[in-house]
Amino acid sequence: MSADILIINGRLFPESGSSDLVDNGFVAIRNGLIVDVGPMTDMTGYETGNLIDARDTLVMPGLINSHCHAAMTLFRGLADDLELAAWLNDHVFPAEARHVSPEMVYWCSKLAAAEMLLSGTTTVADGYFFEDKAARAFCESGLRSVAAHGVIDFPAPGVPDPSRNIEAAARYIGAWRNRDPLVTPAVFAHSPYTCSTETLKKAKMLAEENELLFFVHVAESQIEQSMIRDPWGETPVKHLDALGVLDERTVCVHCVWVDEEDLDILAGRNARVSICPQSHLKLASGYAPLSGMLDRSVKVGLGTDGAASNNGLDLFREMDMCAKLQKVRSLDPVAVKARDVLRMATKAGASVLGFDNRSGAIRKGYLADLVLVDLKKSNLQPFYSPDNLVYAAGGADVRDVIVDGKIVVREGHPLTIDLDETLFQVRKIANHLA
Amino acid sequence: MSADILIINGRLFPESGSSDLVDNGFVAIRNGLIVDVGPMTDMTGYETGNLIDARDTLVMPGLINSHCHAAMTLFRGLADDLELAAWLNDHVFPAEARHVSPEMVYWCSKLAAAEMLLSGTTTVADGYFFEDKAARAFCESGLRSVAAHGVIDFPAPGVPDPSRNIEAAARYIGAWRNRDPLVTPAVFAHSPYTCSTETLKKAKMLAEENELLFFVHVAESQIEQSMIRDPWGETPVKHLDALGVLDERTVCVHCVWVDEEDLDILAGRNARVSICPQSHLKLASGYAPLSGMLDRSVKVGLGTDGAASNNGLDLFREMDMCAKLQKVRSLDPVAVKARDVLRMATKAGASVLGFDNRSGAIRKGYLADLVLVDLKKSNLQPFYSPDNLVYAAGGADVRDVIVDGKIVVREGHPLTIDLDETLFQVRKIANHLA
Repeated sequence: MSADILIINGRLFPESGSSDLVDNGFVAIRNGLIVDVGPMTDMTGYETGNLIDARDTLVMPGLINSHCHAAMTLFRGLADDLELAAWLNDHVFPAEARHVSPEMVYWCSKLAAAEMLLSGTTTVADGYFFEDKAARAFCESGLRSVAAHGVIDFPAPGVPDPSRNIEAAARYIGAWRNRDPLVTPAVFAHSPYTCSTETLKKAKMLAEENELLFFVHVAESQIEQSMIRDPWGETPVKHLDALGVLDERTVCVHCVWVDEEDLDILAGRNARVSICPQSHLKLASGYAPLSGMLDRSVKVGLGTDGAASNNGLDLFREMDMCAKLQKVRSLDPVAVKARDVLRMATKAGASVLGFDNRSGAIRKGYLADLVLVDLKKSNLQPFYSPDNLVYAAGGADVRDVIVDGKIVVREGHPLTIDLDETLFQVRKIANHLA
Repeated sequence: MSADILIINGRLFPESGSSDLVDNGFVAIRNGLIVDVGPMTDMTGYETGNLIDARDTLVMPGLINSHCHAAMTLFRGLADDLELAAWLNDHVFPAEARHVSPEMVYWCSKLAAAEMLLSGTTTVADGYFFEDKAARAFCESGLRSVAAHGVIDFPAPGVPDPSRNIEAAARYIGAWRNRDPLVTPAVFAHSPYTCSTETLKKAKMLAEENELLFFVHVAESQIEQSMIRDPWGETPVKHLDALGVLDERTVCVHCVWVDEEDLDILAGRNARVSICPQSHLKLASGYAPLSGMLDRSVKVGLGTDGAASNNGLDLFREMDMCAKLQKVRSLDPVAVKARDVLRMATKAGASVLGFDNRSGAIRKGYLADLVLVDLKKSNLQPFYSPDNLVYAAGGADVRDVIVDGKIVVREGHPLTIDLDETLFQVRKIANHLA
């Protein structure tokens, strides 16, 4: 038999939930898929041009970032430690109005792609302006993406006339639908407080007509709650539900200020959720009620949000923060476990993004999106259990990354991205801001 | 003029609080001290055998970990996601009783030293059993330490007869006092609930006689609060105060469950504090009232605690977590700022550990404990301000480390520690546990 890539001698962590590590295992990859996996003793003869010796590494599923605004790497650290309103109105929005351009989105999304791949993320759900440039940056970088075109009822970069926002999204979808196996287009309506009911419904309809995902920020802050309650007399989640836009192809991002009824609605509609704990902390939005979601079997993924509000795109760090935060929130160290957040960043994240039973685990027939973690790092020893991936590992411990059956990071170096050129271009754009 | 080490062309962040970065600067080091620092344009001719080109790096003060149990790296990830009592009684204490030996403390402290140096920590305050082995591991590794001998009223590794615990600590101090410039011995009384009032007073007296620091865990958990309140009718802090052990040479570790009066006492006595946010989160202890401490000008440092309850020793990650946690706790994004936690991990930490005006900043006459952060990392660009050190950097972004005027890490590799041998020895010990 032949394999495009054959990984041997690795410690395998095939999926979260199964606590069993395979001490010495192999993975065979062909045509972008995992074709075989198991202990070395079960491996039959393979011919391959690409043998990876995974000794002293842990082979695990690639991480899935279910919410990001990749191009916002440009605004990383531009304005920290501020009130949300001041941060948005005095810094982020003006900087976006002045500096977001097709070129900016392309290069800053490429920087984000580098940061994500190097830290073990193999799939990202992104949403921004000029999203075609982001999609191009992702697929050139070899990063799998669900790349969503932003819809908002304000003049936006690339869509100066908000009355044409749905049209612009439709054009984007037409251009990217079935264009590249790495890119799935989608629609991102900004939020119930920046989109009219009409816009929300039309955006969802556009997504449905194309059988694509519909994203929306919802219930992020306490202020948003009152912005919806005052005119509509309901919570942001109930507002969306009344519009009929909540279903299994809708991803509700944030869901911090949701009550028990909201959680019941999300569960009842089988809507998907993405939470971004570090962004919620840094902007002091609050704590998403994760236990309440998991108790209801709501499918919840983990997102980094944009680098302006995090300020990094490392999902290992996000997992750590997520588990710890939920413990202290409830003063219960058992509240959310390492394996829960590992699932959120892999299998559950895959499910949120429409890759059910295709991604998020190392199984025969699954997409070949894999990460090799360097177990020789001083911060990862001893390695008694996969819990170390949450509480001790960081993105910098990632050695090799494979996406869609192609090696994109080797020994900590990106093979698909010219990092020097990318940094040069991003710095050039950043110099205009500083 | 001659310099043992001359750092040139670096971006300098001389100290927290001064927001000014020097865009292109130099640092000259001789006899373990910083002898000159400034912009390149001010540099006079230096002869040196050790020129470090710091282009594309940020040169900053080394980080100061004000609370650690280094040898507990052995227990990293051994038992996660458990109730505090189950964690301690069913896992940590039995494992310690069986596996703590002089050899274990030596090798596992060396692993911790590697992890700390590689992630930019240049000084650690440690407390454990067989502390002479820890002190030896630290000074061989070139890591500056305040190494405190543990005192507890139970049979402990190395001190099977608790009635001789003060005697054992005194012997340790005699052995390490003025022995090595990198090691300052100290006394660590475990806590008010594991040490009698007599033991607490004697331990403090021993420290005072030698003009050394006295550490004590205090007010870590809600349970501890009731363990002290029931017999003594007072809070843990008031209990210690009544014994007369709180002063500027006492470091109170944790201080999570402290009320306003306790904070006033800590401030009034000029006692020092070390908080360990990640450990407080993971064990669901709660939130230390940091703003209340800073408002009272209490000197507060940042600690990682042991790797069993964190599970890493990366102070960059600890800074990030600390700032973010305080924001969400108060739902105020301005609550604790990046520069506040940078100060805690540098200048304030130095002050907590008795290095006032000698460490924690890049100034003439200060100890030459420095870190070079690699600014070419994708997660650190753009770099508008030192806030990135808190919200975007991780220990893995550290390129070079200098302690006491000696290069201990170069290009991410430890020069003073045989990491392969250390990992081999630690794994050998860990195999008995797993």
